[in-house]
Amino acid sequence: MAEIRIRSSVGEYPVLIGRDLYENELPDLIGRIRPTSVAVVSHASIMGLHGKRLIEAIYPICGGENGVFQYLFAEGEENKNLSTVEDGYEVFLASGINREGLVVAFGGGVVGDLAGFLAATYMRGTRLLQVPTTLMAMVDSSVGGKVGVDLKGAKNAVGTFYQPQAVLSDVGVLGTLPERELRGGMVEIAKYGLLYDEIMLQKIGKWHDGLPENAEELDGVIAACVAHKADVVTVDERDLTGKRAMLNYGHTFGHALETATAYIHLRHGEAVGIGMLMAARLSELCGLAGEGLHEYHRCVLMPILKDVVFPRDLDAGRIVNAMQSDKKKGHVMRFVLLQEPQEPRLVESPGEALIMRAVADIMRDMKGD
Amino acid sequence: MAEIRIRSSVGEYPVLIGRDLYENELPDLIGRIRPTSVAVVSHASIMGLHGKRLIEAIYPICGGENGVFQYLFAEGEENKNLSTVEDGYEVFLASGINREGLVVAFGGGVVGDLAGFLAATYMRGTRLLQVPTTLMAMVDSSVGGKVGVDLKGAKNAVGTFYQPQAVLSDVGVLGTLPERELRGGMVEIAKYGLLYDEIMLQKIGKWHDGLPENAEELDGVIAACVAHKADVVTVDERDLTGKRAMLNYGHTFGHALETATAYIHLRHGEAVGIGMLMAARLSELCGLAGEGLHEYHRCVLMPILKDVVFPRDLDAGRIVNAMQSDKKKGHVMRFVLLQEPQEPRLVESPGEALIMRAVADIMRDMKGD
Repeated sequence: MAEIRIRSSVGEYPVLIGRDLYENELPDLIGRIRPTSVAVVSHASIMGLHGKRLIEAIYPICGGENGVFQYLFAEGEENKNLSTVEDGYEVFLASGINREGLVVAFGGGVVGDLAGFLAATYMRGTRLLQVPTTLMAMVDSSVGGKVGVDLKGAKNAVGTFYQPQAVLSDVGVLGTLPERELRGGMVEIAKYGLLYDEIMLQKIGKWHDGLPENAEELDGVIAACVAHKADVVTVDERDLTGKRAMLNYGHTFGHALETATAYIHLRHGEAVGIGMLMAARLSELCGLAGEGLHEYHRCVLMPILKDVVFPRDLDAGRIVNAMQSDKKKGHVMRFVLLQEPQEPRLVESPGEALIMRAVADIMRDMKGD
Repeated sequence: MAEIRIRSSVGEYPVLIGRDLYENELPDLIGRIRPTSVAVVSHASIMGLHGKRLIEAIYPICGGENGVFQYLFAEGEENKNLSTVEDGYEVFLASGINREGLVVAFGGGVVGDLAGFLAATYMRGTRLLQVPTTLMAMVDSSVGGKVGVDLKGAKNAVGTFYQPQAVLSDVGVLGTLPERELRGGMVEIAKYGLLYDEIMLQKIGKWHDGLPENAEELDGVIAACVAHKADVVTVDERDLTGKRAMLNYGHTFGHALETATAYIHLRHGEAVGIGMLMAARLSELCGLAGEGLHEYHRCVLMPILKDVVFPRDLDAGRIVNAMQSDKKKGHVMRFVLLQEPQEPRLVESPGEALIMRAVADIMRDMKGD
């Protein structure tokens, strides 16, 4: 098992990465937190697949059924909204959970964001345990304390920073993760490689047929991503200095792609993957990077994105429009670009013509025109 | 002008108390914050009375009308809810305000709590300026960073801790505050006196005909309350050690009174005043304080509460029931009691029979039976 400790303004917390963690680590962890009761926030599908293992580990420490309740909500980014949060508050209130309770976020990025926001705001804060079940949540979203929900047309427009007591990533649960979700997680791993870590890129370059059989290799790469994220969030917890903003590599384009396709055709990871290709092309077009950066990105990302079906009726203008109505509205557009691999830079307002060309170039490529 | 500095985990902020502060202090303050735009969150009535002074001070620094917008919501505790927050997010989003903006909470406790929660959670946090316009908000609720809204039947059940950039208390605006609101604020002042400050009690003992004409005396008492609150929130910002919990003196009874009367018959300050009488009586009944504590409280509080009409159809059982379904549900009931004046203690579960008797004794007294 790997353990990475994250320092934050309100103390330090561990990220545990390994196998059989629900059985071997969760009881001790909860025993130390000593919650008066536990709220498991999740989806029915995840509870169906792995809930028994989780619950059986919690029950003995929390006085059996009476000490644990569940708030399950429907899957999908479209449910990461205030209405789902409000339903959650009502369930919490009815259960009698209070500030000495514990919220367990058991799922992927949507669950972690929403359950984290519930924990942060219910009674001005109950304790939070992140138990991610997707590769993307393990390598990225469960760590660093960003929690929140979307407003209509504005992703993550409501939220706060709220650090968990711990993050418990049992890599064994990835065995049931759909192929498309796995590839989304691999895109985030590639992001860390492109931003910070060439050796990681070499490793995942050999994963074309899916995750490696070798548990040590997979757990090691997840831990390496978390270590990179730890370095960043420790020095810029509240996303103020530009350090943490680097983690949005590919995300400005990616969010716009998700918005322009109404969150239907592309998963988050796929959109971010295509977004990094666009960012690399923009880096070349605005003269920051030499020719070749985009090709390098293609070599890293196309094996992961090979099954993505790019919507044929989408045009570049719609994507650029979506970018302008993103949450940076009324503000200069800021992009994470690369001078070369592992050399990220923040670039403000690179010019709409160049942005449009970068988008169009990659779209042509993706559509195979 | 008095200036009290509050230390918090995220830095220090000033509380300014005096006259003509919108004209003399606000422009500099906003000039230092340099917001991209300003959202004034308030009620139409307050904007009608004092909005011109505020807006005229802000306009020149924020590029005129385009840089300032208003989110006004209907008055009353019943509107301090998630629906009002959600409307606020939509107005914020439509205005284009972002993380570099500034939210000005311009009003009493309800405005401060709700606008503060909006500022804390919109885009994971925009800057916040508290500009309280009621005596209660000036002496208590605008300081210390507690922000949030109510759930149905659960006061302040949703919220967070979020520190403002500054608190600007222009005492001049109290001239238009209704008598009943003033007396509510005087109850909070009496609370600080009973908890920490006998000299303050002597001063306000002479205020039976309303606030003193002497500006220096009034401003001095407000500043003294803020200084007491500063001492407490500096050592227990997140209400974890019991120090800050002392500020809830009278509030467990008070909230139950508000709930049992559906927030119609008693204002918050009136309910807290009666709640302190009940707490004093309970202190006597459980043997913590000697006889005489309740009589001492009567001398302090009855001149302030003299016009309160206590609902005759209310019985003690309903109040005790409301206490049990308050936010401490599923948890031991904790009361702030006094061993003697200025000697507060936290007491857990003093016994339902004693609580019931304390409530009944004070109710008999208030009803004049």
